[in-house]
Amino acid sequence: MPEFRKDPTLGRWVIIATERVRRPTDFPRRRAERRGGPCALCSGHERETPPEVLAYRDSPAAPADSAGWRVRVVPNKFPALRIEGDFERRGQGLYDLMNGVGAHELLVESPDHDGNLAALPAGAVEDVVRACRDRIIDLKRDERLRSVIVFKNHGAEAGASLEHPHSQLIATPVVPLVVAEEVHQARAYYDYRERCLFCDMVRQELDEQYRLVAESTEVVAFAPFAARFPFETWLVPRRHAAAFEQTDVARLCDVAAVLRIVLRKLARALDDPPYNLILHSAPFGGGESPSYHWHIEITPKLTNLAGFELGSGFHINPMPPEDAARVLRDTPD
Amino acid sequence: MPEFRKDPTLGRWVIIATERVRRPTDFPRRRAERRGGPCALCSGHERETPPEVLAYRDSPAAPADSAGWRVRVVPNKFPALRIEGDFERRGQGLYDLMNGVGAHELLVESPDHDGNLAALPAGAVEDVVRACRDRIIDLKRDERLRSVIVFKNHGAEAGASLEHPHSQLIATPVVPLVVAEEVHQARAYYDYRERCLFCDMVRQELDEQYRLVAESTEVVAFAPFAARFPFETWLVPRRHAAAFEQTDVARLCDVAAVLRIVLRKLARALDDPPYNLILHSAPFGGGESPSYHWHIEITPKLTNLAGFELGSGFHINPMPPEDAARVLRDTPD
Repeated sequence: MPEFRKDPTLGRWVIIATERVRRPTDFPRRRAERRGGPCALCSGHERETPPEVLAYRDSPAAPADSAGWRVRVVPNKFPALRIEGDFERRGQGLYDLMNGVGAHELLVESPDHDGNLAALPAGAVEDVVRACRDRIIDLKRDERLRSVIVFKNHGAEAGASLEHPHSQLIATPVVPLVVAEEVHQARAYYDYRERCLFCDMVRQELDEQYRLVAESTEVVAFAPFAARFPFETWLVPRRHAAAFEQTDVARLCDVAAVLRIVLRKLARALDDPPYNLILHSAPFGGGESPSYHWHIEITPKLTNLAGFELGSGFHINPMPPEDAARVLRDTPD
Repeated sequence: MPEFRKDPTLGRWVIIATERVRRPTDFPRRRAERRGGPCALCSGHERETPPEVLAYRDSPAAPADSAGWRVRVVPNKFPALRIEGDFERRGQGLYDLMNGVGAHELLVESPDHDGNLAALPAGAVEDVVRACRDRIIDLKRDERLRSVIVFKNHGAEAGASLEHPHSQLIATPVVPLVVAEEVHQARAYYDYRERCLFCDMVRQELDEQYRLVAESTEVVAFAPFAARFPFETWLVPRRHAAAFEQTDVARLCDVAAVLRIVLRKLARALDDPPYNLILHSAPFGGGESPSYHWHIEITPKLTNLAGFELGSGFHINPMPPEDAARVLRDTPD
């Protein structure tokens, strides 16, 4: 069973895998070359994964775990957290730990090993966004869970260990620090101004234009004022909504269209860069919050996080977001 | 002038370089091969750096910026922060920013381009540790500054952009988030228990032994209970001391000896891995704190920080610290 352990110096939880003994040689310095398909996530290899928890197929009568799907969600075969078991908080001397309970799922974005979210047709990106919504709604029914992070690691340098295009969902019984901090800051802003911080950001970005990357009827994409990384881009819905999964499907199709535009611009401007994509949505139970507002953060991985960032929490960004946004605006999608 | 910009969603400051226009091609995907020396940090090239602010030489009569030094500290030619100017907090709509005032120095650890801190003789590591102390004492005299982070990026994968062995000092007019959080957590622990958190950690690690890596009369090196990274190792002084720079030179020589042992064990066990090293010391003015306790954190860079870590603040560590410590204990130095 993995463990959540608390770092008493920072009050931060870390997930420690305890499943198997690792040796120094388990951490190869150089990444292997691209292996190519097929792999366990490819169409026709459905038996090599745990049984699917969701799939969209053209023929609704097709059995589960058969080929013919467009997107498919399966539990991670090597999960960071395990769905079975109790939370069980306990101590060890001055230290605190608890069982690594939670869900860890893979959302396979395409049956094709060589697919790339930025290159898929609009309908396929809509399927991915809809599948996220369906999974979050289902995970919310587990009363032990408090929050879900949907994320995507694209490219080995951004942490992808599987080549097949996929996103991941990790649902946790504690609200992650970054989400808790966002909720806290947004609440402080709301308490002072009686307006939503994110709604105000959308207004200012539309007004100033400098940091805009793309927009639609539902969503504004912009380089954030205090971007931590070169070409960091956020997608924020225009209408206030705390929880992603409460957005109706028609609106999510518009979100998918802007997401596709931004990914295509990044791919073209930066030659298919490694990137991380993260969905931040209200913790379970906070869906009606007037102060929190769901959004997507996309951070290309063009520089290495180095000692100063790790040790101070200050990021150093060598690219002003206004310059990055101009490059992306000028890049066709 | 660089800018500190505040991310309103996290309350975190980011340093944004505004000096020159960057293009997408300024972020090469593949690191260049090792270039080899000599470089501007090599002995005999002293005129290629800004004038030195500190150097240790065998002949005290030698002029500044001449050859013959053992360690040498120079202002960074491309600083993340600038020492001239006022702080000047201001707003831009809902956003907050301030001038990027601060100090950014390079501590050149050896006159030899191909030196490696882990392979230098004991006296050279002592020189490096002593030079840190001297520089912090000097930087503290600037009343605008509140804190200094000393750090080292070893290897390109850990963010080193110069091959020549060096550490860096960045002094800032605001206390970095991570240091502020450590101070806060240690204070909460002290308020509850009337004991220092770090002193208690030292006692528990010496008692349990599982996570010990090395020890001396002055310092204990161990894998922290909630290690974020495989083979993460902390050096914590046995005696309570909030500020590194208040430690006397004899004790620092002992610290240097243990630091050298740990670096040599890591180099041998993991084949000279890329790593980050960070010194956390009390913010300026907090030198007498009964609750804070300076320490050094060494984090080998064997895995990539990925989307989940960035987006949640949860680190996932695939190597239990007890296993890592055993490997390092069993590795000769």
